[in-house]
Amino acid sequence: MKVTVVVGNPKPQSRTRKVAELLVEKLLAPGYELEVIDLADHTDEIFAWPSEKLAALNASVAESDLVLFASPTYKATYTGLLKAFLDRYPANGLAGVTAIPVHTGADFTHAMGPTVTLAPLLAELGAIVPGRGFYLALSQMEQLDEVVEQAAREYATNFARLALVAQGTTSPAHS
Amino acid sequence: MKVTVVVGNPKPQSRTRKVAELLVEKLLAPGYELEVIDLADHTDEIFAWPSEKLAALNASVAESDLVLFASPTYKATYTGLLKAFLDRYPANGLAGVTAIPVHTGADFTHAMGPTVTLAPLLAELGAIVPGRGFYLALSQMEQLDEVVEQAAREYATNFARLALVAQGTTSPAHS
Amino acid sequence: MKVTVVVGNPKPQSRTRKVAELLVEKLLAPGYELEVIDLADHTDEIFAWPSEKLAALNASVAESDLVLFASPTYKATYTGLLKAFLDRYPANGLAGVTAIPVHTGADFTHAMGPTVTLAPLLAELGAIVPGRGFYLALSQMEQLDEVVEQAAREYATNFARLALVAQGTTSPAHS
Amino acid sequence: MKVTVVVGNPKPQSRTRKVAELLVEKLLAPGYELEVIDLADHTDEIFAWPSEKLAALNASVAESDLVLFASPTYKATYTGLLKAFLDRYPANGLAGVTAIPVHTGADFTHAMGPTVTLAPLLAELGAIVPGRGFYLALSQMEQLDEVVEQAAREYATNFARLALVAQGTTSPAHS
Repeated sequence: MKVTVVVGNPKPQSRTRKVAELLVEKLLAPGYELEVIDLADHTDEIFAWPSEKLAALNASVAESDLVLFASPTYKATYTGLLKAFLDRYPANGLAGVTAIPVHTGADFTHAMGPTVTLAPLLAELGAIVPGRGFYLALSQMEQLDEVVEQAAREYATNFARLALVAQGTTSPAHS
Repeated sequence: MKVTVVVGNPKPQSRTRKVAELLVEKLLAPGYELEVIDLADHTDEIFAWPSEKLAALNASVAESDLVLFASPTYKATYTGLLKAFLDRYPANGLAGVTAIPVHTGADFTHAMGPTVTLAPLLAELGAIVPGRGFYLALSQMEQLDEVVEQAAREYATNFARLALVAQGTTSPAHS
Repeated sequence: MKVTVVVGNPKPQSRTRKVAELLVEKLLAPGYELEVIDLADHTDEIFAWPSEKLAALNASVAESDLVLFASPTYKATYTGLLKAFLDRYPANGLAGVTAIPVHTGADFTHAMGPTVTLAPLLAELGAIVPGRGFYLALSQMEQLDEVVEQAAREYATNFARLALVAQGTTSPAHS
Repeated sequence: MKVTVVVGNPKPQSRTRKVAELLVEKLLAPGYELEVIDLADHTDEIFAWPSEKLAALNASVAESDLVLFASPTYKATYTGLLKAFLDRYPANGLAGVTAIPVHTGADFTHAMGPTVTLAPLLAELGAIVPGRGFYLALSQMEQLDEVVEQAAREYATNFARLALVAQGTTSPAHS
């Protein structure tokens, strides 16, 4: 299974990145291949068109089975940097990718962000969001492990339920 | 597999209901049990508290594996009737339920509705939305069969992808 | 000036109502006419069509200069009862009405609600929202007076700025 | 009166820019000072911190009485470029600015965008949005003049109504 973490913080090596990496670790059984794309390392070509470097990153994300899109909360929603990366896709450019929105923020004032702003954006691109978005307030940093563990358990439960429903659907090839 | 269609149109037997029923038929292989709840039949107790009748309906929906929440577009979003039904749940009251938002509307002006308004509401309740919301414009009624078939195929593809990812997650019991 | 408070709590005489009434008192100079519509008193006909009683309430709100739409937070957004009342309007039914969205909630988790869910709904109906929505967490009840006073001051400042811009626009009659 | 148009299209001199400029022309009586900021000209420093050039642009926008934020529709919402510009503000950085959200798009599928995504973002920054966001579909280009004229008339009507309400509010200095 190919897993990617895309980090939308304009500053590299952020806490937001660490939170997303921890969620991957807690959510997945060993045996996956992980790539982390810290968009802070690629701001120079984010508005260049065409860009071989960005095209390769976009392709790598679109070919993933699971992607965590992680962003600090800027103005109650995801960063412009993350959006600029997603803007490079054509319509439906993340079709079939399972995507988990992750926001971090100072307190809970913007806790709705990943669910009401980033999740619909990912769905618009064709991605599938398996539940609520994950929000971490910095006041929770001391309980980071437990908070992320609980979120991982919730997503794992959701996946188990989705797999059951999947068995009852018509084969996509035939329908 | 237990499947439910919840219809939020204040008028019973609506086209919205028929559209949702057709999506169920196209999406699922035979062998499921289907219940249709036309909320128009239950407006008398929708604000009564407690209400045995409504409690039974709420429970039936929450115990379903898959639920289609179908609403005509009222003021660019789902109806107050559908929201009033969902308001009766406690926090996380649809945990683990797979839910597909379905809106119908006159034209495409409010096509974003099921994805940006109903899907986040269902996620807030703990439900899992496997992709974009489904929107049908009345101008598409003549191609209803093809349009719904294509949506069903997209959801079926999404479910197949989700089932793959599910195999790589930690067991919810252990994590 | 005609001012109306519409309260969407299914229970009458709520704290949400008191909060909205206090905001009116703090925001406006004496000399206005105030009507309070507690929708809890009108649930019996909210889905009846036609309904003389509801039609009169709808008309009264639409003829107001300023309306506060106040709702407790249910599932991260406004109540189904408030939405059911708004659903009775035709398209653009609140054209030209100045409207302030007010949500109350247990804590700040859903503080984005009035700005990202109720404000766009009111705008869809043609109303004009003069700034952010107002959110009050119950943990703020002891500082209620100061919190509401600050919100009133912010709206008053916004109105003063809007009045300046208004002077520079073309006359609506001529344009 | 100081008026600014901020254009979020990564390509300069876009149709989106022309549409926003036309709306300014139709909405305002002569006598205003207009600045147009085409963000496409400033992508090189949009993620640089600090940046004198960007700081000057941010300040100029924040000191305006009226700002039109204009963006083509990318993934159903505003561009990452526009968001990256807005991300440079501190909390409440557009306090008191009257702001009109303008989106252009291929058809009406994403017509809700300026009202449900850009307007709440501007409100979060403290700006005041005087009504719905303005959306123009490219299929309307032949009736551009009439469509923009009608939008201008609607905003002008809203401003006239807001000015009336402003007269009844407490003075912001005293309250």
